[in-house]
Amino acid sequence: MGPLPRTVELFYDVLSPYSWLGFEILCRYKNVWNIQLQLRPSLIAGIMKDSGSLTAMRFLTAVNMEHPEMLEKASRELWMRVWSRDEDITDPQSILAAAEKAGMSTQQARGLLEKTSAPQVKNKLKETTEAACKYGAFGLPVTVAHVDGQTHMLFGSDRMELLAHLLGEKWMGPVPPGVGAKL
Amino acid sequence: MGPLPRTVELFYDVLSPYSWLGFEILCRYKNVWNIQLQLRPSLIAGIMKDSGSLTAMRFLTAVNMEHPEMLEKASRELWMRVWSRDEDITDPQSILAAAEKAGMSTQQARGLLEKTSAPQVKNKLKETTEAACKYGAFGLPVTVAHVDGQTHMLFGSDRMELLAHLLGEKWMGPVPPGVGAKL
Repeated sequence: MGPLPRTVELFYDVLSPYSWLGFEILCRYKNVWNIQLQLRPSLIAGIMKDSGSLTAMRFLTAVNMEHPEMLEKASRELWMRVWSRDEDITDPQSILAAAEKAGMSTQQARGLLEKTSAPQVKNKLKETTEAACKYGAFGLPVTVAHVDGQTHMLFGSDRMELLAHLLGEKWMGPVPPGVGAKL
Repeated sequence: MGPLPRTVELFYDVLSPYSWLGFEILCRYKNVWNIQLQLRPSLIAGIMKDSGSLTAMRFLTAVNMEHPEMLEKASRELWMRVWSRDEDITDPQSILAAAEKAGMSTQQARGLLEKTSAPQVKNKLKETTEAACKYGAFGLPVTVAHVDGQTHMLFGSDRMELLAHLLGEKWMGPVPPGVGAKL
C-alpha cells in the first residue's frame, strides 16, 4: 500500500481560460501523483470583487488626467512591484514608491494620490471601465483597434498577430527589431 | 507624410499580468506601426462583476452537490463551449446542451438547472468562493495543496512544477506519459 493521497483543491470558473489549463493538467496527474483532487467551482466575479487594485487604478486615472505623459512609466512601475518583485500595491506608501520610481517628485505623487478620493477621478475610472464593458470586455487586457471607421475588440495579450493584420502591419514578435526592450 | 495614425485603445488593470504583456508589446510597437496608443486604466473588478458565468457556476455547484461524479465532464463541456468553440454559456439552453454532451439525460440536466435558484446551491457557491478568498485568491485558477498539515496556495496554471515539488512528485509536462489526453 502506497502513502495516503494528499488533498489538492482546484478553485476555478469556466470563464477563466487558464483555469481550464490547470484543470486538465490536474485531472491527468491525479492518478500519476496519487492526489485526492477536489474540484471547487467558484465565481471569479466574487474573487475579483475586492481584489485590491482600486486605489492603484484610481491613482493611474489621476495620472492620466493630470500628467498623461507619466502614465506609461507609472503603470510599469506598479506592474514591476506586483508582478516582478511580488510587492504590495494596495498601500498608499507602495503607490508613492512606484510613482517616485517612475520619476515623479514626492510632492507631485502625493498630490495625485490625494486626487484618488476626488469624484472626478472616481467617475473617470468608472467611465473607462464601463467603456471597456460596452466594447464587450469580460476580462483584461482588452485592445480596441479603430480602423477605417470600424471597431475591433481583441481580448488578451496573445492576439497581436491578428491586431497587426487588422492594422495592415507586420507582426515581428514581442520585441520588434530596433526597439530596445529592457523587460 | 505617411498615413494618419490609427487609434488603438488598451484597457488594463495592473492586477492583470497579461495586461502587462499586452502593454509592453503595444508600447514597443506604437511607433513601428504608427498607431496612436491610448492607455485606458480600468478596474478589472468592475469588468468581471457581471461577467456572465453566474448560472454556469451555480449549475456546476449543483452538479457537485448531487452528482459529483459528473463534475469533471460537465465543467469540461462548458469550457469546450466558451473557450474552444466560442459558444454561449449564459443561456439555460447552452448549459443544458453542455450537460447533455457531458452524458446527462435531459431530465437530469433540467433538474440540476432548476436547482441553480435554490438557496443551498447559491450559498454553496458563495462559500466556495469565500474559501478561495480566505486562501488569498485574487484571481483564478487557484490550487491549494494540503501537505503534511500545511497549506500551500498557488495562483495560475503555470506553477505545476512547484506543485510537484511540494508533493514530492515529478513534473513531466502537461501530458504525463501513459495518459491519453485528447485535448
